Amino acid sequence: MLSDTRTSPVQELLERFRAGKRVALARAISMVEDARPGFEALLHELHPDLGRAQRIGLTGPPGAGKSTLTSKLALQYRERDERVGIVAVDPSSPFTGGALLGDRIRMNNIATDPGIFIRSMAARGALGGLATTTKEVADLLDAYGFDHVIMETVGVGQSELEVAGTADTTVVVLVPESGDSIQAMKAGLMEIADIFVINKADRPGADRLAQEIEVMLHMRLGESQPAAAGHHGVSLKSVGKAARERTQQAAEEGGSWAIPVIKTVAQSGDGIEELARTIDRHRVYLESTGELSLRRQRRLGERTRAVVNRRLQTLAWLRGPGEEILAESLPALESGADSPYGVAARIVRALGVDTPAGIQT
Amino acid sequence: MLSDTRTSPVQELLERFRAGKRVALARAISMVEDARPGFEALLHELHPDLGRAQRIGLTGPPGAGKSTLTSKLALQYRERDERVGIVAVDPSSPFTGGALLGDRIRMNNIATDPGIFIRSMAARGALGGLATTTKEVADLLDAYGFDHVIMETVGVGQSELEVAGTADTTVVVLVPESGDSIQAMKAGLMEIADIFVINKADRPGADRLAQEIEVMLHMRLGESQPAAAGHHGVSLKSVGKAARERTQQAAEEGGSWAIPVIKTVAQSGDGIEELARTIDRHRVYLESTGELSLRRQRRLGERTRAVVNRRLQTLAWLRGPGEEILAESLPALESGADSPYGVAARIVRALGVDTPAGIQT
Repeated sequence: MLSDTRTSPVQELLERFRAGKRVALARAISMVEDARPGFEALLHELHPDLGRAQRIGLTGPPGAGKSTLTSKLALQYRERDERVGIVAVDPSSPFTGGALLGDRIRMNNIATDPGIFIRSMAARGALGGLATTTKEVADLLDAYGFDHVIMETVGVGQSELEVAGTADTTVVVLVPESGDSIQAMKAGLMEIADIFVINKADRPGADRLAQEIEVMLHMRLGESQPAAAGHHGVSLKSVGKAARERTQQAAEEGGSWAIPVIKTVAQSGDGIEELARTIDRHRVYLESTGELSLRRQRRLGERTRAVVNRRLQTLAWLRGPGEEILAESLPALESGADSPYGVAARIVRALGVDTPAGIQT
Repeated sequence: MLSDTRTSPVQELLERFRAGKRVALARAISMVEDARPGFEALLHELHPDLGRAQRIGLTGPPGAGKSTLTSKLALQYRERDERVGIVAVDPSSPFTGGALLGDRIRMNNIATDPGIFIRSMAARGALGGLATTTKEVADLLDAYGFDHVIMETVGVGQSELEVAGTADTTVVVLVPESGDSIQAMKAGLMEIADIFVINKADRPGADRLAQEIEVMLHMRLGESQPAAAGHHGVSLKSVGKAARERTQQAAEEGGSWAIPVIKTVAQSGDGIEELARTIDRHRVYLESTGELSLRRQRRLGERTRAVVNRRLQTLAWLRGPGEEILAESLPALESGADSPYGVAARIVRALGVDTPAGIQT
């Protein structure tokens, strides 16, 4: 389909990428990150190779220990001899250089494992948005053959939540201390969570937080899924852990997922195995109910929309008449003789596209 | 220029808006928020009325007390008989309904003052992004005649930071407890701050945090402005407050702004007067150095870009062939026979715009 890639540098890169050369993966990622010529052709060619990896979104407030948890989860997968790609967009992550030196050194233990690949995304203002680029890097890790691709993002902000929310399985990490933050982010985080993790669960307040979350989940379930509310119609406080797991299993067999709340101490490794098992279970649930396929369809639609929008921006600003018209119009904009809306209409018209009805300049 | 608005509902709304009808302001805001037909024409017409208000961006981590601070600052301006418009995009803000009932009731004290107008933005996925819509609502408040327009956003996430960063004066609010969070958000917040506020400064750690920020500011100043580094070439620890204020004043007269760090206890009102005075001083600095005009020019350019991009998205998806082509292409996308990049190219071509070189489908 992309005839000009047959003998091009893109084609050469593709061959080395498919041969499993790590350097080719790194180059492909840089190419996508910098939106260098041919990056979309590369992603187009790799598209049929997607869908083998399990995509895990991991998000939560700053300071929740997301990176440590990500590292420990990766090591857990390594024990099963499975390979893990990590892409982090989180100003608080040691992967992205936001944290203290000590953390960064600690992380290097996993950075030298050939079965683990870590890429941190610079939060610069890429045309078309960091969110799409991050998901495209996750695609590369998937196509390259990693069994698990973990996307770590900070759980505040529209686009950051969106990235984690488009994974197969989204893990929301909270900590007992983050009382205010939880209030803050509740709405957005509740909507995307498939699994809740309470990290640093050895600190005071972990049980109370777990209960609060279960109550919130219970309320939401009662609202949106009246049919499934029955088995939640008892006080969660009085239900033991074993009973809860049985309840969950029954629900999954019946085709509904009761969002689990897992306690971990990432630093010591406590609870990481349970988290990995729960992610496995979620994967089984997704596959058996057809939800995996639905999520991936949604992802394909969203990606297409994002690529169209990015391409239109490129046409308007990088290759098009936008900057020139804008520069000419600045005096009129400043004097108030014209508005951004008038100038925008002229730029859109210069692109050869009709302007919407109701705006004439 | 917009001939069809002369006798339209937009024109009627404009007249009542300009007559200072509060109901018209609320209607105009809803129109912009929902991107209802004519909303761009409305903003176009009001463009010449912009620029009278002082725009203040107020941002920081969840739980920093931004809303209380915003309220107290607004009341401070009310004492001078100045009018204040507030637009909040912050999941943790009581204005936007994210916090506890008690907070919300407390806020109602200022919500009944006719010299204060509060609008909270729903964080739904508006086409073209919440960031642009928020700034357009700030425009409406400016055009309506408020003396101060405060934009409160949570200080994590690309677009949230961007909103606060495009104000005339950007205030970054931190609290002693937010140790981890500061590490987290340092990079983004340092870049946009004109003024730092340490709120809840009666709690332990406030002095240490103030010192840390001053050291960071000092380091940054040393890097980027070697000429101005001289008067910072002493340990900030040993410099008293009065001396520091003299230093700042000298710097401002010399055309550079030494970012102040102010301690407040918003709950009790401590430090609010100093904050208001500092914002005044920043305004004088902006005007006397020509920086205000530069910032507003940059804002006009950014707005024009955002409006073009939003319009192109509207053309592709709401009024254009995008959804239809995408729906037809889903089977091929799922089977791997086509990719989002191939489908995107077809949609862009169907819009009548050329596709970039290097991608042919």
